[in-house]
Amino acid sequence: MTDTVVSSAKKEVIIGFDRPFCVIGERINPTGRKLLLEEMKNGDFSRVEADAVAQVAAGATMLDVNAGIPLADEPAILAATIKLVQSLVDVPLSIDSSIVAALEAGLSVYQGKALVNSVTGEEERLEAVLPLIKKYGAAVVAISNDETGISEDPDVRFEVARKIVQRAADYGIPASDIVVDPLVMPVGAVNKAGASVFRLIRRLHDELRVNTTCGASNISFGLPNRHGMNASFLSMAIGAGMTSAIMNPLHEEEMTGIRGADVMMGHDPDCARWIRKYREPAPAAAGGEGRRHEREGRRRSRT
Amino acid sequence: MTDTVVSSAKKEVIIGFDRPFCVIGERINPTGRKLLLEEMKNGDFSRVEADAVAQVAAGATMLDVNAGIPLADEPAILAATIKLVQSLVDVPLSIDSSIVAALEAGLSVYQGKALVNSVTGEEERLEAVLPLIKKYGAAVVAISNDETGISEDPDVRFEVARKIVQRAADYGIPASDIVVDPLVMPVGAVNKAGASVFRLIRRLHDELRVNTTCGASNISFGLPNRHGMNASFLSMAIGAGMTSAIMNPLHEEEMTGIRGADVMMGHDPDCARWIRKYREPAPAAAGGEGRRHEREGRRRSRT
Repeated sequence: MTDTVVSSAKKEVIIGFDRPFCVIGERINPTGRKLLLEEMKNGDFSRVEADAVAQVAAGATMLDVNAGIPLADEPAILAATIKLVQSLVDVPLSIDSSIVAALEAGLSVYQGKALVNSVTGEEERLEAVLPLIKKYGAAVVAISNDETGISEDPDVRFEVARKIVQRAADYGIPASDIVVDPLVMPVGAVNKAGASVFRLIRRLHDELRVNTTCGASNISFGLPNRHGMNASFLSMAIGAGMTSAIMNPLHEEEMTGIRGADVMMGHDPDCARWIRKYREPAPAAAGGEGRRHEREGRRRSRT
Repeated sequence: MTDTVVSSAKKEVIIGFDRPFCVIGERINPTGRKLLLEEMKNGDFSRVEADAVAQVAAGATMLDVNAGIPLADEPAILAATIKLVQSLVDVPLSIDSSIVAALEAGLSVYQGKALVNSVTGEEERLEAVLPLIKKYGAAVVAISNDETGISEDPDVRFEVARKIVQRAADYGIPASDIVVDPLVMPVGAVNKAGASVFRLIRRLHDELRVNTTCGASNISFGLPNRHGMNASFLSMAIGAGMTSAIMNPLHEEEMTGIRGADVMMGHDPDCARWIRKYREPAPAAAGGEGRRHEREGRRRSRT
């Protein structure tokens, strides 16, 4: 059992083997969102505010915050965005940047214990990011690629993850503060991407004993009915041992797949969250429908 | 790798570790369907005909046929139903009865190699059913309960399955002709039912090397949003190694969960079946929508 504890000033969230799946909302990210990019660049954070509130309302347990705006002062914008988001919602944040100075700017204003997104197995990146993680007592997403790129061989990606965990230990960072991203390939391009990432997630869970995350929607890139495929992928990844994902919590199909998987894993005691979310209106309002469901239930049960 | 080959006069279907998931349509079963029961009792098979055609059209790869009508001549009705269904559709059938004489009546008229549903670990049942399986060269569903009932301990259920496989071997029936039903409990009553059945499915796959099936909708008995939960369960069960299920193929959510899982397992080469099922209308009709999806795909991919 491994618990990664992250927090805001007011709230602690635990990513863990025996915990409900952690949904990290991905929306506060101007990459590919031209309107949001222009607004953030010009100091208009109204959409950031709306996205923060909406994602938490939809069930996000953490929010990723990225301010990757070309030619802008990313450290300053990221720090400002983090302060703003922390003033609006209680969930812990993932501070997301490819620029080390921006990560540090974000960490310096962050209240609580953040998740930093991300470090890779590249030497330069390890040496720049890990000291920051140690200094601020943060947790970190470890992406399983290195100087040689992203291997299609899950065993190679496992070794990269192991290397990052070992290097982190050299800096005094425990494995429980590392959340490995095994890297999800689009199944439309790499037909074995699903089976191969599940195998890798299982090894990361059973052997390296670390928590895991991924950019979930990558799996369905280029294919139709992406939400249906993402939902199926997420359920199966949770079954294989994945403990969090960076994703859009506003999509109901994906969230249903996650809630169902939480029930299946025994992480929703008495199905209380499932029932609260999906229960039908009181019998007075919809008695007929309720009774029909009950009948169906009986019929389908094999006796 | 284990392949269970079943067939009709015209079509062979393989239930197997490296095959697309086998959907066994459950609808031709009067248990709890009062109207169907009355009709079948009175020799009206119009609903059976419609159910046969509709289930195959919806994607069933096999059909279960049950004629369990209290106080009626079940062997005669089951045999007649099987002849009728085989005249209408090409998929292989599962001959389903708790009455051994009905199983034999069904087998005697069946064209091809049937799946018999079912034998249990009970001595009396083993001795009555296994000789029939051998005589007709059929395959059989083996339900993992015995005289002591259904154990909540998956390891006990595993041992019952092992006993059935061994006993079948004594009759000259290979393990590849046994499809084990590990018994799915409602997760609303037994909170660990999901996790525990996945563990059992994995052991049946890895250690006993047998194909598996289950009454999929049992998992959600008594809970709201049954289709959402069933879909999540099916995806995860396939991830754990389950190779078939007895279920209603007319429910789109469940079928999407299965199709997605087939892609994830690498059992849908080039995602060809997924794309055929879900592709959007030609660009001339819906170009804007297609382009929007493509943009979303790019945005979500982490680079």
